[in-house]
Amino acid sequence: MTGTESDRDYIQSLERGFAVLLAFDAERPVMTLAELAAATRLSRPAVRRILLTLQRLGYVDGGGGRWRLTPRVLSIGQHYTASHALIEIAQPHLLHLAEQTNESASLAALDGTEVVYIARVPVRRIMSINVAIGTRVPVHATSMGRALLAWAPRPEIERVIDNGLRAHTARTVTDPAEFRAALRTVRDQGWSLVVEELEEGLLSVSAPIRDRSGAVVAALASSTSSGRADSERLRTEVVPLLLRTAERISADLGNRAVARTGVQGRDGFF
Amino acid sequence: MTGTESDRDYIQSLERGFAVLLAFDAERPVMTLAELAAATRLSRPAVRRILLTLQRLGYVDGGGGRWRLTPRVLSIGQHYTASHALIEIAQPHLLHLAEQTNESASLAALDGTEVVYIARVPVRRIMSINVAIGTRVPVHATSMGRALLAWAPRPEIERVIDNGLRAHTARTVTDPAEFRAALRTVRDQGWSLVVEELEEGLLSVSAPIRDRSGAVVAALASSTSSGRADSERLRTEVVPLLLRTAERISADLGNRAVARTGVQGRDGFF
Repeated sequence: MTGTESDRDYIQSLERGFAVLLAFDAERPVMTLAELAAATRLSRPAVRRILLTLQRLGYVDGGGGRWRLTPRVLSIGQHYTASHALIEIAQPHLLHLAEQTNESASLAALDGTEVVYIARVPVRRIMSINVAIGTRVPVHATSMGRALLAWAPRPEIERVIDNGLRAHTARTVTDPAEFRAALRTVRDQGWSLVVEELEEGLLSVSAPIRDRSGAVVAALASSTSSGRADSERLRTEVVPLLLRTAERISADLGNRAVARTGVQGRDGFF
Repeated sequence: MTGTESDRDYIQSLERGFAVLLAFDAERPVMTLAELAAATRLSRPAVRRILLTLQRLGYVDGGGGRWRLTPRVLSIGQHYTASHALIEIAQPHLLHLAEQTNESASLAALDGTEVVYIARVPVRRIMSINVAIGTRVPVHATSMGRALLAWAPRPEIERVIDNGLRAHTARTVTDPAEFRAALRTVRDQGWSLVVEELEEGLLSVSAPIRDRSGAVVAALASSTSSGRADSERLRTEVVPLLLRTAERISADLGNRAVARTGVQGRDGFF
């Protein structure tokens, strides 16, 4: 696609519509037209037209000039979830892992230099971070990210390194050579362990989920806090359960893929 | 807003962009340009421009002419979740209720004549229906819907009735007078029970969550299957826990609202 072709085909109003939706967050759950214009750097008339359109589509609500997102925006993510059989297949396995370990179990996918939570079974009532589906965390500082990246093509690994290995704690691996070595360890042992590299007190282990071609399509993670377990306990007690669960999900995914292909000839499994 | 003004301000490409995103589902997780054009009833050139734009924004991926949603679409819903403090506030209470009852606990909000799951803690490993955040169910045939509608203004109730009380099972209440009586019962007792009106074998109880003004902003639900519990067990064992949990969430919501208002003067709690 050439630059010109790309520009001609690009629909700017679509980008702006998403920019308005994504302007709402925990700090700004309710905004006026003026606040939205400032947050998106768009003109007030442009934001007004977008808001009126989004309101007619049911995604925002603006009673009294105070705009907010409606629960209809969750539909968009639900279509992602529904269209990825992996999430449905993994759900009972995540629950089982969470029950066995009494720790939260998560499933995550790679999106550029970030990792996105695509399914999660929380177990602890008091967590240092409240992780919702769709939450994004950096690839390099998480066990999920390393499990997803370890078997990726070289250019993808280098892209993450080139993007900068930002320190989130004093323990974050920020040196490229050390990071490449960490990925080699993940490849050798078949799972990843990251201790307090994203946040103090947060430990997690992850294993790759593979489709029937063997490609890594997601990471399964079990996370805990330093008050409840240390890396030794994770290694000896959690990793064997994690690996068994990841293998079962991968097996179910392969079987389902085969079963479905027979009927539909489609491959919506990542 | 007059019809003319509304039409002038309506951005059709935004509507079309969402139509393309929402065309992907469990039955059609991967689609070609031609399939998407057929599904959305848009022209191929229009769909092509939308796909190229969505691809540049990172929401779809189209390797080999086979298009699919990326995990980035989950970000949109995550902004809804983050911008509604209620969801974060309710999370530990949902977990506690799920632990106490050993049944899935859910939080839902009203969106027109439908109910949307906005948070959920699953507990059973084998469920008849796999419910994801963002899943929509009819208001009239669910305990959550009735808990949300019972205290709503009369016109909102009539809108649901006018929309048609469709039978989902032989037990669905489809008669308007009977439905109004069912809502009166909910108002009188303070909670709702719906037995197999949406699906055979599915039972649930719900209670309203109120903001500090007393308005019902969400419903808390506990659901089970007829194989595990009957309505008598729900009444005697689950309802007391449900009501206590709903009161605690409402109280936390009121306290948080007061605490936040002092600092920010905002009300992002529905």
